[in-house]
Amino acid sequence: MATAALTLYELAAADAALRFSPHCWKTRMALAHKGLEAERVPWRFTEKAAIAFSGQGMVPVLVHDGETVTDSWAIALHLEQRFPDRPSLFGGNGAMPLARFVNGWADTVLSPAIARIIVADVHGRVHAADRDYFRTSREQRFGQALEDVVADRPANLAAFRRALQPLRRALAGDAFIAGPAPAYADYCVFGMLMWARCISDVELLEPDDPVSAWRDRLLDAFGGLARSAPTARG
Amino acid sequence: MATAALTLYELAAADAALRFSPHCWKTRMALAHKGLEAERVPWRFTEKAAIAFSGQGMVPVLVHDGETVTDSWAIALHLEQRFPDRPSLFGGNGAMPLARFVNGWADTVLSPAIARIIVADVHGRVHAADRDYFRTSREQRFGQALEDVVADRPANLAAFRRALQPLRRALAGDAFIAGPAPAYADYCVFGMLMWARCISDVELLEPDDPVSAWRDRLLDAFGGLARSAPTARG
Repeated sequence: MATAALTLYELAAADAALRFSPHCWKTRMALAHKGLEAERVPWRFTEKAAIAFSGQGMVPVLVHDGETVTDSWAIALHLEQRFPDRPSLFGGNGAMPLARFVNGWADTVLSPAIARIIVADVHGRVHAADRDYFRTSREQRFGQALEDVVADRPANLAAFRRALQPLRRALAGDAFIAGPAPAYADYCVFGMLMWARCISDVELLEPDDPVSAWRDRLLDAFGGLARSAPTARG
Repeated sequence: MATAALTLYELAAADAALRFSPHCWKTRMALAHKGLEAERVPWRFTEKAAIAFSGQGMVPVLVHDGETVTDSWAIALHLEQRFPDRPSLFGGNGAMPLARFVNGWADTVLSPAIARIIVADVHGRVHAADRDYFRTSREQRFGQALEDVVADRPANLAAFRRALQPLRRALAGDAFIAGPAPAYADYCVFGMLMWARCISDVELLEPDDPVSAWRDRLLDAFGGLARSAPTARG
């Protein structure tokens, strides 16, 4: 196979080494699963002009041999279709819609629950140029000041941990959501945990939670790609 | 293929025609998906002796040519393995663990949310011999009198409808959770809705909810098997 030219635009903090978007993490893990490397371009919320070529204003944006793909789910489908000889991200056509369900669960349940824990940390670490945009857009979403959203951290942590119950049930059956080996359904959920790991000091999980052991397995995957990523903890 | 001798023990209400267990509904839909018919034996919570042969005390219990299988998930795997030439319940090995995730979501999120709406209706319709057992075991689980569990129906309905958000997201992509055609992941969730339909007068869904249209499609599946089942509404 000829080498593919891949460029990935990733959300970055004030420290450009901190790449914290959960959706960009889904894509990074998907690329690693396929054995692909991309040039990774740091991008900030307010740099709309830099990705205007994609016809929209959010990352991840993947440019593949001149073709632009946006939205992490569409990027996963693109990689699966364009690299069919590499390990499958889904494990067959029957599994793809179910991976989409897991992705929807991560986006609609885990993402808001984690945001209630870390959104003020995100605000503290985004680029100075992004700060006003970030506060305004997130306070509009929550209908509260960021400081009020995160005020009761113990309650927010407890709610997040309760929300993980379906994941614990799945992990009682196999090492990964997708079975004995990880696949895109795992990365959809893992991306949410990488979001917190990269931008906040908070520890989301109890050490004896089976979700913590699963996260360790994914931190170690692909030669420790995720474990070696720079975090807010330094 | 030789005709299989299949017997399914199903939870029944005081009215033996009301078969309301969500887990038994998962199995009924799985049998229909495989084009199989079973002799359906009504069973009540306190009839432990009648299924003692299975080595445990819960339904569904499937007896297949003299072999006993318990637990709806194990029954689905059994049917998939023993009837490989019939339509697949999962759509491939890669999909099976993800269907298990959906099943775990239904059991850990939807089941308790629906119980908070209908548990007093269940109590009112189980067999007289089951009533004390049912009240005691469920009040222990909730730590509340059944009447207190269901006291705020609008709030409990609102919480249940919020919990359906991942399902709505999935249904934005395809007609069924499993894709263009239904499979076991759909039946795991649909069984929860059949539980309420068969034992309670309450309507769980707003008519314009995409989940309602999906439920209609499954009520109509297999010649209207589920739609024609007796309900508490008569």
